[in-house]
Amino acid sequence: MRYEATNLAEKFRLLNEHWRPKIVAEINDYQLKIVKVEGDFVWHDHKDTDEAFMVIDGELRIDFRDGSVTIGTGEIYVVPKGVEHKPFAEKEALVVVIEPRGVVNTGDAGGAMTAPAGEWV
Amino acid sequence: MRYEATNLAEKFRLLNEHWRPKIVAEINDYQLKIVKVEGDFVWHDHKDTDEAFMVIDGELRIDFRDGSVTIGTGEIYVVPKGVEHKPFAEKEALVVVIEPRGVVNTGDAGGAMTAPAGEWV
Repeated sequence: MRYEATNLAEKFRLLNEHWRPKIVAEINDYQLKIVKVEGDFVWHDHKDTDEAFMVIDGELRIDFRDGSVTIGTGEIYVVPKGVEHKPFAEKEALVVVIEPRGVVNTGDAGGAMTAPAGEWV
Repeated sequence: MRYEATNLAEKFRLLNEHWRPKIVAEINDYQLKIVKVEGDFVWHDHKDTDEAFMVIDGELRIDFRDGSVTIGTGEIYVVPKGVEHKPFAEKEALVVVIEPRGVVNTGDAGGAMTAPAGEWV
């Protein structure tokens, strides 16, 4: 039998909205999501979980209340649980997010940028 | 304050043994490991967990008892828990592995290719 890997570039091409993560793989109860980002996201935190960001193409800046981190192509950063953060990308960037199943992109902040948590692509 | 992302290419340059995964990030009790692979690994499974493989550079083939999957650069594949598999790479490949903390690379199979489970790079 022939099994198929998931090609991230092909999956990214199917995304047509910024800041709307979609699931591409599950590892037990963790999910690997892809998201296209550009411009400002909203301040939020995730009370119960860390959140890993891996940049596949472009540059993502994450602002914290006391500083920021810039994540370039091929780099990864884990935002610890409970830490307020605001993602930002000057130009479109392609990002992988790794976190437990069911995490909402805006945490408890809500608002127009809140995306459904269970969408696959 | 300025926070630092982890550059995967820099971390891969620090690896000098094949099939010896090292941790580069933790997301709660999950770990993101990097490993350089070349040649044959051993048949094994992980009774309690799925195991995600993302190829950063090169090509990784994973043989199953009833087939195989080839994972190219920029592709991901999740081996379900309990499924026997044998990784193989004809040429050196750079691979990211995502799995819970404490997973041993050879599962219960043991042998010379068993690597320590808790090494960071």
